[in-house]
Amino acid sequence: MSRVYNFSAGPAVLPEEVLKEAAEEMLDYRGCGMSVMEMSHRSKMFSDILESAEADLRDLMGIPDNYKVLFLQGGGSLQFAMVPLNLMPHGAADYIVTGQWAKKAFKEAQKFGDVKAIASSEDKTFSYIPDCSDLPVRENADYVYICENNTIYGTKYKKLPNTKGKILVADQSSCFLSEPVDVEKYGMIWGGVQKNVGPAGLVVAIIREDLIPKEELPGVPTMLQYKTQADAGSLYNTPNCYGIYICGKVFQWLKKQGGLSAMKERNEKKAAVLYDYLDQSKLFKGTVVKEDRSLMNVPFVTGDKDLDAEFVKAAKEAGFENLKGHRTVGGMRASIYNAMPKEGIQALVEFMTDFEKKHL
Amino acid sequence: MSRVYNFSAGPAVLPEEVLKEAAEEMLDYRGCGMSVMEMSHRSKMFSDILESAEADLRDLMGIPDNYKVLFLQGGGSLQFAMVPLNLMPHGAADYIVTGQWAKKAFKEAQKFGDVKAIASSEDKTFSYIPDCSDLPVRENADYVYICENNTIYGTKYKKLPNTKGKILVADQSSCFLSEPVDVEKYGMIWGGVQKNVGPAGLVVAIIREDLIPKEELPGVPTMLQYKTQADAGSLYNTPNCYGIYICGKVFQWLKKQGGLSAMKERNEKKAAVLYDYLDQSKLFKGTVVKEDRSLMNVPFVTGDKDLDAEFVKAAKEAGFENLKGHRTVGGMRASIYNAMPKEGIQALVEFMTDFEKKHL
Repeated sequence: MSRVYNFSAGPAVLPEEVLKEAAEEMLDYRGCGMSVMEMSHRSKMFSDILESAEADLRDLMGIPDNYKVLFLQGGGSLQFAMVPLNLMPHGAADYIVTGQWAKKAFKEAQKFGDVKAIASSEDKTFSYIPDCSDLPVRENADYVYICENNTIYGTKYKKLPNTKGKILVADQSSCFLSEPVDVEKYGMIWGGVQKNVGPAGLVVAIIREDLIPKEELPGVPTMLQYKTQADAGSLYNTPNCYGIYICGKVFQWLKKQGGLSAMKERNEKKAAVLYDYLDQSKLFKGTVVKEDRSLMNVPFVTGDKDLDAEFVKAAKEAGFENLKGHRTVGGMRASIYNAMPKEGIQALVEFMTDFEKKHL
Repeated sequence: MSRVYNFSAGPAVLPEEVLKEAAEEMLDYRGCGMSVMEMSHRSKMFSDILESAEADLRDLMGIPDNYKVLFLQGGGSLQFAMVPLNLMPHGAADYIVTGQWAKKAFKEAQKFGDVKAIASSEDKTFSYIPDCSDLPVRENADYVYICENNTIYGTKYKKLPNTKGKILVADQSSCFLSEPVDVEKYGMIWGGVQKNVGPAGLVVAIIREDLIPKEELPGVPTMLQYKTQADAGSLYNTPNCYGIYICGKVFQWLKKQGGLSAMKERNEKKAAVLYDYLDQSKLFKGTVVKEDRSLMNVPFVTGDKDLDAEFVKAAKEAGFENLKGHRTVGGMRASIYNAMPKEGIQALVEFMTDFEKKHL
């Protein structure tokens, strides 16, 4: 068995240690004689898995008691509808559009109320985060929505927007658990786990309790109401049990790494290896303004499409997988999530250096 | 490692061979250097997994070309909303209520239109399937809805209802792939895979193409429109990739077993071992009328709650797991899905015979 360096934007690399444990436990989870996939979601064994996962996540992120943690299905695309359906009691919300996912969220929300884009960086292909210190947040807006790390474009909010007292809702999918977060600054944080935490098919939603509608929302599907899973501890129906189990293992792994402060430090060092190289390269260049660079997703180009394609092909042959940029953007992108070892990035930079020598 | 006999109603027992393969491939899927959990859902490798799974399912069930196969998230509970939102162009549908899941589907559908229960077996705790040869199907009904196998109560339609020309929609979750199905008799079949096929967090929907709305449905979340995933080959957003991978392996396993005709024969023989014992037992008795008995879920009681509890406890100690009846019903239930070996049922019957001797 030989593992490649996998720079996929998601689903993405997971800690090898977690995968090894999962493989070992596949037929017999801790002596219970069955796989986690085979367990009743209402069994004591699975309850323990679910409760430990939630407790470890609360511990890692410092989630206050007045926030609910929900494990949901349907991916981010379903959250794009659930957020406005649940958190817009006055029927209005303001969106900051910093990439394709923020835009999709914005468009979906427009189906359900008076939803406005109060800032956008689309004018420069989403290569920066707009100044959010004094935005025209509307008086009647129920929340301000951001996508905190933009996977496709490689930008990240280094400072949260001034929401002028309104609730902040953040899609943290691609920076989830990559650094400490002050949860109390948000009304809701959600993340699709398939980028930085676990297998696709699971969203973790962290919602301030008082924002969850107290009554059933008429005409809204039961499964699209946060109340449904909040009241049932994520067990209204059968959840993605195996996904929760793997995420729980990753939460444990993160604690062993020293928690989110240690991860931030490590992620900064890892990203610096690549950004420092890009900043001095004569062939490759990063596409994002320096102050808004993501620690998780690093897009870069040569400026020549054919050469980009040649690079991606050569890199793949050398064991660097999934470096092709998003189909809507082109170029290259290295996603360097928590589980990508520094050695992987160092090896990539060596490979890029060699490639540069040959092609300048 | 010692595996128990797992009679869980879902999530439930999976073929040991499938779990072994999954464990072996966990860190390195067929030499690609990564886990299936780590693969981009848009990679060639994952496309192959998805396409093979669909092709094998089409082959197993004989699904005609004019039916779409969709791999969806959200569980059956989300289908309870998606079915009426998508398949009710005239705003009316008729439901046959044969258990808790049919009832939940019926209640959810009532949110979205003129939905009527045209038959029910609730009068006798859902212990039978109503006569469906001449039901008052309404002229304006867009479809007739059934839950074909009732997991909690242990009943199964042995003959499909006379829908008087209306489209039939069936929740087959707990009998999915347990026997051959004439797909053309249905407008739509869907099944949560966590009972007979794979890990929780995935629904397979088989829908006649002409029933899928051609235009976007205004006001309906994008993710709740069948058109969204039908147009995108289940890849509108990141699906439950690992779930699809495991289901694909189970489809392969079913083909190796001889396909659905062979499974039916095997399932009939397996169920007969337990039903034959129940029919002559002086302690235990089945709770369902004989002609409507499910081959998948076998509920039974002693008639004494304390003795039921004692039996469940003793069985657990002897390695027979999850025999407790559903929390809403009580008693016992043995779920004997495709992956439950005949030996498991024979061993259970031996254990019940011993228990009976001691307690009569």
